[in-house]
Amino acid sequence: MYTKEQLTNLVNRAVASLSFSEEAARLFEPVRYVLGAGGKRVRPVIALMACNLFSDRIDDAVKPVTGLEIFHNFTLVHDDIMDKAAVRRNSPTVHRKWNINQAILSGDVMVFMANECLLEAPARIVSDVFSVYNKAAFEVCIGQQMDMDFEKSLILSEEDYLRMIELKTAVLLAGSCKIGAIAGGADKKNADLLYEFGRNLGIAFQIQDDILDVFGDEKVFGKASGGDIVSNKKTFLYVKALETASAEQIRKLQELYSGNNDDPVTKIKDVKELYDQLDIRRITAGIANNYINSSFSLLDKVEVRKERKRELTRFAESLIGREH
Amino acid sequence: MYTKEQLTNLVNRAVASLSFSEEAARLFEPVRYVLGAGGKRVRPVIALMACNLFSDRIDDAVKPVTGLEIFHNFTLVHDDIMDKAAVRRNSPTVHRKWNINQAILSGDVMVFMANECLLEAPARIVSDVFSVYNKAAFEVCIGQQMDMDFEKSLILSEEDYLRMIELKTAVLLAGSCKIGAIAGGADKKNADLLYEFGRNLGIAFQIQDDILDVFGDEKVFGKASGGDIVSNKKTFLYVKALETASAEQIRKLQELYSGNNDDPVTKIKDVKELYDQLDIRRITAGIANNYINSSFSLLDKVEVRKERKRELTRFAESLIGREH
Repeated sequence: MYTKEQLTNLVNRAVASLSFSEEAARLFEPVRYVLGAGGKRVRPVIALMACNLFSDRIDDAVKPVTGLEIFHNFTLVHDDIMDKAAVRRNSPTVHRKWNINQAILSGDVMVFMANECLLEAPARIVSDVFSVYNKAAFEVCIGQQMDMDFEKSLILSEEDYLRMIELKTAVLLAGSCKIGAIAGGADKKNADLLYEFGRNLGIAFQIQDDILDVFGDEKVFGKASGGDIVSNKKTFLYVKALETASAEQIRKLQELYSGNNDDPVTKIKDVKELYDQLDIRRITAGIANNYINSSFSLLDKVEVRKERKRELTRFAESLIGREH
Repeated sequence: MYTKEQLTNLVNRAVASLSFSEEAARLFEPVRYVLGAGGKRVRPVIALMACNLFSDRIDDAVKPVTGLEIFHNFTLVHDDIMDKAAVRRNSPTVHRKWNINQAILSGDVMVFMANECLLEAPARIVSDVFSVYNKAAFEVCIGQQMDMDFEKSLILSEEDYLRMIELKTAVLLAGSCKIGAIAGGADKKNADLLYEFGRNLGIAFQIQDDILDVFGDEKVFGKASGGDIVSNKKTFLYVKALETASAEQIRKLQELYSGNNDDPVTKIKDVKELYDQLDIRRITAGIANNYINSSFSLLDKVEVRKERKRELTRFAESLIGREH
């Protein structure tokens, strides 16, 4: 079995060995920049772990799953334009370091680089692998649209929010797991189980990310507490709070979320207080837990000896903050 | 043999029958808008003609080549953002009718729609077809980068300009012809001949487009004369003029091309006069003609009876303004 470190190294080496056209070198500067900025390589690593469940030979899968990493980074480059984000992984975003046009075009070319990697899957599975990938990529766009639409809507249901994060985040993790399983020779049943495992894990991950932004420890999670509140971002906590709040509390929360000029420290404190009154942290953690439990029980059903699942289980646990 | 009209109808029907996700309907409004705005469907039609050279059964090729049309329209949506273009096919561009974020994201989703269409190629050829498509798509991005780079550079060689239009325009036409040929069952030699036919035709088409903008008849070509001059667009005429001009003429042309505030009628007249002094129209038409001749002699070499080439020959002639 490969460890997370070994797989991360394999992916990093595949990323580093990507060749870039000599022509129009400017096009690829942002591509090198974002792909070289690190990140945890979650999607290709989890895909290789899914592959490794079924097979000890994972070499043929490395290049295709590198396409998942390139695709993911493409979405970051374009999303950062749309969100007017200035910083990503502690560095300026592409559209800030270069400009919007460059971020659009360098993002675009990454899609065709991703396609090319995925096309390198072995002939017997290339169609299946590409279909799973393309469906996920298509859905990620729909998820991003829902996210943009939600920014403008006052009321948002829990169901809509869950569907949005499912499409924007979870389907790519799900697709990555399924692609890995297919590459490892899994049958349809097991490949579908891995898809559902990844989907539930992805939803849980995103809900927990919302919790951590408000209640997480900055030193542990490397994320400034309360950033979502300051930027009026509609998170699961916000949606859940609106659902359970009294009319007066709704008015208060919407008022807090309507301005940009409040003192951030006071704003974070006020919103947190409201969340505490409504017991939002506990309720939200409970819902995340349901997805986590579903995720692990799906992994249990995968027809592979338990000890082969060790690395994948550990990696999944680390993603949702259940380190041991 | 299918006529151009029959093939255009087939493509239009395939475009009209594309299904769109019910979720995030806003994402697909711009997609419907650009795909429904007409256009000549040049790439899928020429692909189907190339297919029809080798086979009377073209049904299986319709969906995959529709992907070429979707991809082409994706490039228009994103290029129009980058070029700050306000109008396309007599209607507002997507980023003007909606906004830049919507144009980025709706453009993005079109790539995955295009992928999906191309994946519907018959299993025995899907890998070949997708590789040809993806190489062209990748190169189109490089061509767009060169175009953006050139806008900022003062001097530009004829060689660089030709390479730019080859990548930005010709490789997709070339790839379309080759994909059609593969779908029709052509062997490698004939598929490659069709690629080269399309490549030469595409370069000729783009050079002629530059000529028509300055010297064309507005009533015949539907294009306002001199638009490229008014917007300081570096065309083949401009590059060729700089190459052959005296120091004084270079100074004059660069001066004319440096401002935006001149009276457009005078500016067009002055640039045209300079082009006339340098015999640029004749020289440029000669170069376009070389590409046209190469193109048709490559088509001659395709090992198919001459009468089967009639529709494709006519269509190619119409594209480069040699109607009969």
